[in-house]
Amino acid sequence: MLSVTILGNNSAVPAFNRHPTSQVVSHDGTNYLVDCGEGTQIQMIKYKIRRGKISHIFISHLHGDHYFGLVGLINTFSLLSHKQEIHVYGPEPLQQIIEMQLKVADTILSYPIFFHTLTENATLVDNERIRIKCFRTQHRIPCFGFSFEEKEGKRKLLIEQIRKLQIPISFYSSLQNGLDYITPKGKVIKNDTVTAAPGKGKRYAFCADTRYDEGLIEHIYDFDTIYHEATYLDNMQDKAYSRYHTTTKQAAALARKAMVKRLLIGHFSSKYNSLDVFQDEARQVFPNTELAIEGVTYEV
Amino acid sequence: MLSVTILGNNSAVPAFNRHPTSQVVSHDGTNYLVDCGEGTQIQMIKYKIRRGKISHIFISHLHGDHYFGLVGLINTFSLLSHKQEIHVYGPEPLQQIIEMQLKVADTILSYPIFFHTLTENATLVDNERIRIKCFRTQHRIPCFGFSFEEKEGKRKLLIEQIRKLQIPISFYSSLQNGLDYITPKGKVIKNDTVTAAPGKGKRYAFCADTRYDEGLIEHIYDFDTIYHEATYLDNMQDKAYSRYHTTTKQAAALARKAMVKRLLIGHFSSKYNSLDVFQDEARQVFPNTELAIEGVTYEV
Repeated sequence: MLSVTILGNNSAVPAFNRHPTSQVVSHDGTNYLVDCGEGTQIQMIKYKIRRGKISHIFISHLHGDHYFGLVGLINTFSLLSHKQEIHVYGPEPLQQIIEMQLKVADTILSYPIFFHTLTENATLVDNERIRIKCFRTQHRIPCFGFSFEEKEGKRKLLIEQIRKLQIPISFYSSLQNGLDYITPKGKVIKNDTVTAAPGKGKRYAFCADTRYDEGLIEHIYDFDTIYHEATYLDNMQDKAYSRYHTTTKQAAALARKAMVKRLLIGHFSSKYNSLDVFQDEARQVFPNTELAIEGVTYEV
Repeated sequence: MLSVTILGNNSAVPAFNRHPTSQVVSHDGTNYLVDCGEGTQIQMIKYKIRRGKISHIFISHLHGDHYFGLVGLINTFSLLSHKQEIHVYGPEPLQQIIEMQLKVADTILSYPIFFHTLTENATLVDNERIRIKCFRTQHRIPCFGFSFEEKEGKRKLLIEQIRKLQIPISFYSSLQNGLDYITPKGKVIKNDTVTAAPGKGKRYAFCADTRYDEGLIEHIYDFDTIYHEATYLDNMQDKAYSRYHTTTKQAAALARKAMVKRLLIGHFSSKYNSLDVFQDEARQVFPNTELAIEGVTYEV
């Protein structure tokens, strides 16, 4: 199952008990951390995120509300004697910033840490279960979104048929991989008579901070769920443009053009206390919009 | 009035809803921030600390639980269009760390910021109302405590006497400063017949992270209130020593030897859920001990 849990849904200045950007994408028991604003580790405790399940951290850009919590989290992992590798993906100066702070504190981490510099359209993780890629967004400083594409699962065994045909258990995993079975007497049993097609992999994208940008569509087209910022309400289009952000209706228009199934909006400006209008405005353009609420897990 | 409000009373790893070190020393409408662990700006909102009243920030040392919240606070001041000067006092690399993070974010602050490097026994602030000094403590990396000494106030006017003698109002402030008054007929009215001695200035010290160190006594002798870390309980003396920290009874013993009037203890290790034993142990050695509780303001 692919899901995302929101830890912070606010823009730069914390307000109204909303926190800076962070979310956890979970897939098959692995937690991928996306952005890490100040206080993320405290939000993790509050919402019972298993920190030990995190080995990959993705930082979209180096505005503080997206990464000021990272150095504290890296430190805490070490104080808790974490042993597994941690991989951090972010814009280049991130490594220098973190390493300088570890150095002045005379800190030797308890685990190996690897920094990976984001480059346009790079594939960051690609294994038999998931592919994670990054893509540039239109922001004031270099900024990247991330797409998570679950791989198709294995074929499903039709266990009654299989037993009837007395196919040995040792061949089950070959069946899941699509192979035909040949009986001891040489008869070919076609794979699709004893297995069913796997479910289609789910796809999620985190679109980071950005102006309205139809260039993003190719990276998120037909996705199951996308998270797109909606810093401002519709009447603030000019401010959104000048600050490299997006309004509710712009985010919704992009979701519609990209033919995604669901839109989550977040990164709300601290000037707004109530969020109801954000939802109302976006739904006028794209009905399947939801507010990204802190502590809530959305199944993709 | 001199007072201190606790924003964070825990050691490095946040736990049990306790936060890393930060406190606000308030004097005559000015807020002095002492240390700024991750999440300090959120604690300030929670406890209604007026951020705009802060112009001096003191960072004891560069372990993350004492300063990871600083860059976010500096950023927030700017996003809120703060205009007044901010003075930051800390160990030398702090300036480089903060400036690097502002630079990669392409941030120009809305206000002037000045960094001051801490050196042994330096006087950091000295005006007619308060004197703030720093002193070295015994920690794994360079670390400083801070002492706040309220200046003696002005002499108090004995208003009935003054009126009886028909001393003009324009001379009142000279009386407060201790001058004698000479009547138009040349008669000398001695100052101490029309004024009373001012109240003695209060004194507070934040003793930062440290091993038990009697070298601190000269900096805090006879103070009204000191805050001293008590990371561990009494049975962890060895661990306290090896990690450059202090136990409950050591903090209390130091308070007793320094003849201070009251001891606040904090910087509790994340291994302890309940804090009652901390208070009990310290009070066995120094009865006027209190736990530093987040959100509570202690009058010095």
